[in-house]
Amino acid sequence: MDKNVLVRSLYRNTSDHLGKEITITGWIRTLRASNAFGFIEINDGSFFKNIQVVFDNKLENFKEISKLPISSSLKVVGTLVETPNAKQPFEIQASEIVIEGMSDSDYPLQKKRHTFEYLRTIAHLRPRSNAFSAVFRVRSVAAYAIHKFFQEQHFVYTHTPILTGSDCEGAGEMFRVTTLDLQNPPKTENGDIDYSKDFFGKETNLTVSGQLNGETYALAFRNIYTFGPTFRAENSNTARHAAEFWMVEPEISFADLEDNMKLAEDMLTYVIKYVMDECPEEIQFFNQFIDKGLVERLNHVVNSDFARVTYTDAVEILKSCGRTFEYPVEWGIDLQTEHERYLTEEHFKKPVFVTDYPKDIKAFYMRMNDDNKTVAAMDLLVPGIGEIIGGSQREERLDLLKKRMAELNLNEEDYWWYLELRKYGETKHSGYGLGFERLIMYITGMTNIRDVIPFPRTTGQSDF
Amino acid sequence: MDKNVLVRSLYRNTSDHLGKEITITGWIRTLRASNAFGFIEINDGSFFKNIQVVFDNKLENFKEISKLPISSSLKVVGTLVETPNAKQPFEIQASEIVIEGMSDSDYPLQKKRHTFEYLRTIAHLRPRSNAFSAVFRVRSVAAYAIHKFFQEQHFVYTHTPILTGSDCEGAGEMFRVTTLDLQNPPKTENGDIDYSKDFFGKETNLTVSGQLNGETYALAFRNIYTFGPTFRAENSNTARHAAEFWMVEPEISFADLEDNMKLAEDMLTYVIKYVMDECPEEIQFFNQFIDKGLVERLNHVVNSDFARVTYTDAVEILKSCGRTFEYPVEWGIDLQTEHERYLTEEHFKKPVFVTDYPKDIKAFYMRMNDDNKTVAAMDLLVPGIGEIIGGSQREERLDLLKKRMAELNLNEEDYWWYLELRKYGETKHSGYGLGFERLIMYITGMTNIRDVIPFPRTTGQSDF
Repeated sequence: MDKNVLVRSLYRNTSDHLGKEITITGWIRTLRASNAFGFIEINDGSFFKNIQVVFDNKLENFKEISKLPISSSLKVVGTLVETPNAKQPFEIQASEIVIEGMSDSDYPLQKKRHTFEYLRTIAHLRPRSNAFSAVFRVRSVAAYAIHKFFQEQHFVYTHTPILTGSDCEGAGEMFRVTTLDLQNPPKTENGDIDYSKDFFGKETNLTVSGQLNGETYALAFRNIYTFGPTFRAENSNTARHAAEFWMVEPEISFADLEDNMKLAEDMLTYVIKYVMDECPEEIQFFNQFIDKGLVERLNHVVNSDFARVTYTDAVEILKSCGRTFEYPVEWGIDLQTEHERYLTEEHFKKPVFVTDYPKDIKAFYMRMNDDNKTVAAMDLLVPGIGEIIGGSQREERLDLLKKRMAELNLNEEDYWWYLELRKYGETKHSGYGLGFERLIMYITGMTNIRDVIPFPRTTGQSDF
Repeated sequence: MDKNVLVRSLYRNTSDHLGKEITITGWIRTLRASNAFGFIEINDGSFFKNIQVVFDNKLENFKEISKLPISSSLKVVGTLVETPNAKQPFEIQASEIVIEGMSDSDYPLQKKRHTFEYLRTIAHLRPRSNAFSAVFRVRSVAAYAIHKFFQEQHFVYTHTPILTGSDCEGAGEMFRVTTLDLQNPPKTENGDIDYSKDFFGKETNLTVSGQLNGETYALAFRNIYTFGPTFRAENSNTARHAAEFWMVEPEISFADLEDNMKLAEDMLTYVIKYVMDECPEEIQFFNQFIDKGLVERLNHVVNSDFARVTYTDAVEILKSCGRTFEYPVEWGIDLQTEHERYLTEEHFKKPVFVTDYPKDIKAFYMRMNDDNKTVAAMDLLVPGIGEIIGGSQREERLDLLKKRMAELNLNEEDYWWYLELRKYGETKHSGYGLGFERLIMYITGMTNIRDVIPFPRTTGQSDF
């Protein structure tokens, strides 16, 4: 007898189990019963699909089983048999059913459909629904695909710090981290908060990017990546922003912007393909219930080269396309979501790299182009999302880097170690950041970032 | 001609490159030259070992190359040839050397040995040294091994939140996270800080464990794991504690303490074996220069079953062993590091699970044993480190869980969603936490946690 078979194995290795007595454990998703027999759909958590269990009144606890509330947990012993004329390919004919945990009958996830808004209020239970079961298994498999992609090429996974004394991009509101007694904080002689008494002896924040730290490791290990949480204390209440989200930040040495774009394209293609191969049931579900064009779009991405356009050319396309945008387009503006989506969804109709942005709208560390007006930056725009990746070749020339920092009033002393990377064996190097949640939205078709994070943190929201 | 070959490939796929013209890029580790020829040891970041490059005065920039400071970056074109009578197996005979980035001659990592203490002050450069190159590549490979181990068994990787309104274990100092103006914080009528005006509308901290959130996902996906940063604001300045560290927390449903220990043992064995297979050069280095008995110890762990002893029996062993401990041993005490190390290093001489601890020294969520005095907890102790894993079977019985919370004055309302897991289809379930840094210390033989974290955060230390 097979002990405790997983439902995943019933579907993936069916022939190993057919005709045999097996034991499964799991939770009731649906149950209907007459006086003579009944059907239970059981989900055991290991697989997107349920397994049907048939039981009859030869079981001594038939009546008790017949009345079980859904979500109760069971152990079922029975035989796996094919059901050629039914919707499902096979079922378990139960010889014994043991109740492990009886659910209350007020279980909130009854069969009727719920709004995603409502399901957010029961974030501890929503992964038991079809949609969120699919989302969060895909999230896990996609995360693994990212590790697999980089590790197979021997990139070094680098844990850059979450707590930091420096603001990497000089942009974005940061969260302060402290152990001071806020009711009675220590003060200096002139009445300021005395951070020398704080845990780290100075002001400390949550990281907005691991990039600068990542560069230090790229200049030792050549190719590295980070994959960890980052934070923005922006008071924006959109479907695309969260205060806590996960970023993937590869950084590669002896590599220019072209190498950087190739890596980004290879990575994205790899991850999408891996998820489609490993989670066909989930992708099918999304395609049917969440986003009708999903499979077509993902196949298109996997099978076609990404487009490339310079910022300057993109601006020309937008100005001459005959479309009226809410934000008018002029060379020098930061592209808005409406512009990005027009480019990727309507003009190119596929993912597009926009390159060589004006220096004034990009960060200090991006490499100055020879025109002295633009920098070797690239953003990857994808249909349905807009920007999913932002990156650049890094400025490796110490004099130019210092000049740019001076223009932006950045204090060299705060970046002494970053500057030293340019003193001790600098090479051209590049990197990018991928917003992991945006990738999951892209792969699943889900349209709100709150629905691809297990327990989302947004303005006014840190429950669970 | 092979374009840009990695040094890793020269060592791992030597026959593909022997006799061929290849191009490599990398950094100078050592350089010595006469008037006629010279030798450069180059490390390209992709591999622990260097490649030797031989060059002679037929190169037009021979003199310039001869005087290069170490850490300068180069591109080398040449032929890979075997060197049967030399220490290294092969070398590159250079036909062209291009300087990519000239290093300053005051590069701090000169050939002489540096203390680990000094190297911590140049955390941005230390991964370029042999020891830290080995440590942080092993850290990366071990992290991947953990993902691989769980994903191959289809565990769902779950990103539990970093920002949290609840203190999971009710223990440990937490970091407060805020966007309030600390100089002039908003106050309520009675003069308290008004956290309703803070970013999340209430007091929010950095997580100390993802376990409670993890349990919610285990009761949907059956088997899950977390792997992310956790935080303790403890003012302890030891070699084993950091304020920011990474934890691995699997949580498994339909599983008791025995299943839990089996998983922990399988995981640890898998990860150690994977690292030994993937990083033989690094492990050899640690064995030679950091910890002479390392390979023997790791092999011993991989090839022998872990020991098991109840807390009650462990106390008897300690009381009757004839050793005088700093902290006297009595049933009911929390085992100290000296006790743990005696058990694992001297009594059992291998990893040992200590189980069934007194309830009063363990957390509220651990499952009460029938003796009503102990709980179904387990700590895994390993030689050289002490505790590396702590876990338990979770209390699934709602009435007993509530009773325990009342005894500890925990507010049920704060845990409403955790308690609901017991209402809606509870099963026996278990889990544990692995301190990832302690694992790396164990695998490498490094004795200070500051030396296995790229940019460590400890009391008074958040530089870089």
